[in-house]
Amino acid sequence: MRELPSLEKLTLSFSKLPGVGSKSAERMAYAVLRMDEEDRATFASAIEEVGAKISKCPTCGLYREGDACPCCDDEERDHSIICVVEGDRDAMTIEKAGYRGLYHVLGGVISPSKGLLPEGLSVSSLLERVKNGNFQEVILALSPTIEGETTSLYVSKLLSPTGIKVTRLGYGLPMGGSLDYADGLTIEKAFEGRKKI
Amino acid sequence: MRELPSLEKLTLSFSKLPGVGSKSAERMAYAVLRMDEEDRATFASAIEEVGAKISKCPTCGLYREGDACPCCDDEERDHSIICVVEGDRDAMTIEKAGYRGLYHVLGGVISPSKGLLPEGLSVSSLLERVKNGNFQEVILALSPTIEGETTSLYVSKLLSPTGIKVTRLGYGLPMGGSLDYADGLTIEKAFEGRKKI
Repeated sequence: MRELPSLEKLTLSFSKLPGVGSKSAERMAYAVLRMDEEDRATFASAIEEVGAKISKCPTCGLYREGDACPCCDDEERDHSIICVVEGDRDAMTIEKAGYRGLYHVLGGVISPSKGLLPEGLSVSSLLERVKNGNFQEVILALSPTIEGETTSLYVSKLLSPTGIKVTRLGYGLPMGGSLDYADGLTIEKAFEGRKKI
Repeated sequence: MRELPSLEKLTLSFSKLPGVGSKSAERMAYAVLRMDEEDRATFASAIEEVGAKISKCPTCGLYREGDACPCCDDEERDHSIICVVEGDRDAMTIEKAGYRGLYHVLGGVISPSKGLLPEGLSVSSLLERVKNGNFQEVILALSPTIEGETTSLYVSKLLSPTGIKVTRLGYGLPMGGSLDYADGLTIEKAFEGRKKI
């Protein structure tokens, strides 16, 4: 049986990515083999650059390219609100929805089964920020799962002595969806959160 | 809105891979960002190496690492049969099924709608090999699709003046499958190909 060690090495690297099985990884490695020289060089250098150029903002934890944080150092943003998110990508999703305040990346949600304890999250730095800053509101934008809810409760309890207003995102029917497909718990939450029209 | 050019560049490279949409590409780029330094360096070098170390055998078209072709230069193989395949990966699939003859990679199947004409395939080099070699049989192992069938017919007509025995793979029920799920055409082919037991 033929051996192509370089191709196998690349297949292994691809298979370490999320959602990529061994078959897909092989297919991707073959695709790289068929790419032209230039595309391949661009791909390889992009992987190196991402590590060299991107770092985390020491204040909010968002990724940044360069020395200035795209949020903390942006004077046009509302510096009186902090939105607490699980990861960097969530912040981007919220950004697309129009939010223009500050962020705080927790780095996960409390999940003992996955080995994620409160100490592993950047909760204490959030507390420091709130204590030392001049904020009006902390919005908890964590996923509506058991782990997310637990984390929201935990963070809000820690923040309560500071007297700051702590909110969480509203739960209810997702826009554009059909009532038919909504689960019981979502409908229950939608009833609780009903509004006068 | 924040900009991370390095991450966008990497996302673009990932999105050029087969079966990777923009969302998955972004997820993969973030995963690379979270990798440790060493894994990232291995990944980048694997992409470069695949291009630098792997080449196509000028005779059969299979990928090889080094100067010797893993098939053409292997004396233990049966040098009297050539198996014609669409691409390199098909050869590997056939290899796993136990075949130990030679190969010929066509580089695709005739598909005018995709811009693949007979001239774009390595058909003439196959004809040369058969004319100048001492082969007993050419096995056409192309996909059982309209394009594959057309290509098989085309290749077999071109080879007929040489008098060599040309065969194609058998069609019928796939092993382990249920008759329930087989389509009409497959069952028709299975009837045609029925064997005495």
